[in-house]
Amino acid sequence: MNKRLNAQMAFLMEADKLKQIIRGTTLASGARYENSGEHSWHIALYALVLGEDAPDNVNIDRVIRMLLLHDLVEIDAGDAPIFGNHDATEMAEKETAAADRIFGLLPPDQATSFRALWDEFEAAETPDARFAKSLDRFQPPNQNLASGGGSWIEYNTQFDQFEARVGNKIKRGAPWLWDWLQPKAAAWFETRGKR
Amino acid sequence: MNKRLNAQMAFLMEADKLKQIIRGTTLASGARYENSGEHSWHIALYALVLGEDAPDNVNIDRVIRMLLLHDLVEIDAGDAPIFGNHDATEMAEKETAAADRIFGLLPPDQATSFRALWDEFEAAETPDARFAKSLDRFQPPNQNLASGGGSWIEYNTQFDQFEARVGNKIKRGAPWLWDWLQPKAAAWFETRGKR
Repeated sequence: MNKRLNAQMAFLMEADKLKQIIRGTTLASGARYENSGEHSWHIALYALVLGEDAPDNVNIDRVIRMLLLHDLVEIDAGDAPIFGNHDATEMAEKETAAADRIFGLLPPDQATSFRALWDEFEAAETPDARFAKSLDRFQPPNQNLASGGGSWIEYNTQFDQFEARVGNKIKRGAPWLWDWLQPKAAAWFETRGKR
Repeated sequence: MNKRLNAQMAFLMEADKLKQIIRGTTLASGARYENSGEHSWHIALYALVLGEDAPDNVNIDRVIRMLLLHDLVEIDAGDAPIFGNHDATEMAEKETAAADRIFGLLPPDQATSFRALWDEFEAAETPDARFAKSLDRFQPPNQNLASGGGSWIEYNTQFDQFEARVGNKIKRGAPWLWDWLQPKAAAWFETRGKR
């Protein structure tokens, strides 16, 4: 019993470090950059609030579990801002090694089941993972709109880049959220182009 | 559809402010104080990892939903550090008014169901709420132990206060976690007394 609980607590104490991984997006207020711990909480809340519109074959509690775990690999691999330039293959290798190490802190049966949930999220093929990925992409632009541009300004993002890297991922798992966001984002990019 | 989604998004954007509510506990590294958004994520992860030992009548997915919502009232009411002195009646009034306003941003049916979950957490009478409350009390002392004392030093906390305000709440919903923590905490207080 204690050996198992010791392993679980080692994992939970390691997880604490996700609060110090800084993302490319700011808070809605623009006061500071967001960290990956609070981001994970926020999109789990998005799933709880917006899950009612997901297809019937999406299990929201499973999506929430996935979202609680989805960024833990960043403790070792760091966050790769969506509009930044990074080597996708190298990043995937770093994240796989991070998953091995971090989930490996858990008792073996739990390590296996958490890892399977993270692998499913990364593959983005099941209905749960597609919806989870959509929420992960849908939250940051809302914070950019609230803060007056945020990472779009910092990375000098163009609307077609935004549509390709963010819009298409939102559309895949939650097209109705893209329908809601698209005109708001398009208006921002249109106005920015005229400044 | 848009009216409903607009209300849900107003709630989710308001929730972003929880990331700027500062708690009395630091991160495990001691680098800075923890905020209530990342704290909410962390204890939802505690529920996911440690839920297997909860009594059979505890529904972990429901506990996770409760924990995602439990601190939102702090956006208006602020965080009351556990070893600080505050007027409990006044705090409860502030939190009730905060719950009215914040959950009230949601569409009425969702406002009602989220509010019911928060009321259940606050009352701490059902098995789900008791387990959720235990995790909310169990996480901070682990961060204090990791950082070398944290809020125990800041508030000059004595072991009997710790046992009364924290230990008894952990015991109520998760006695096995208190059994694990108690000797570690007792050793810290014992050593501190001799410095």
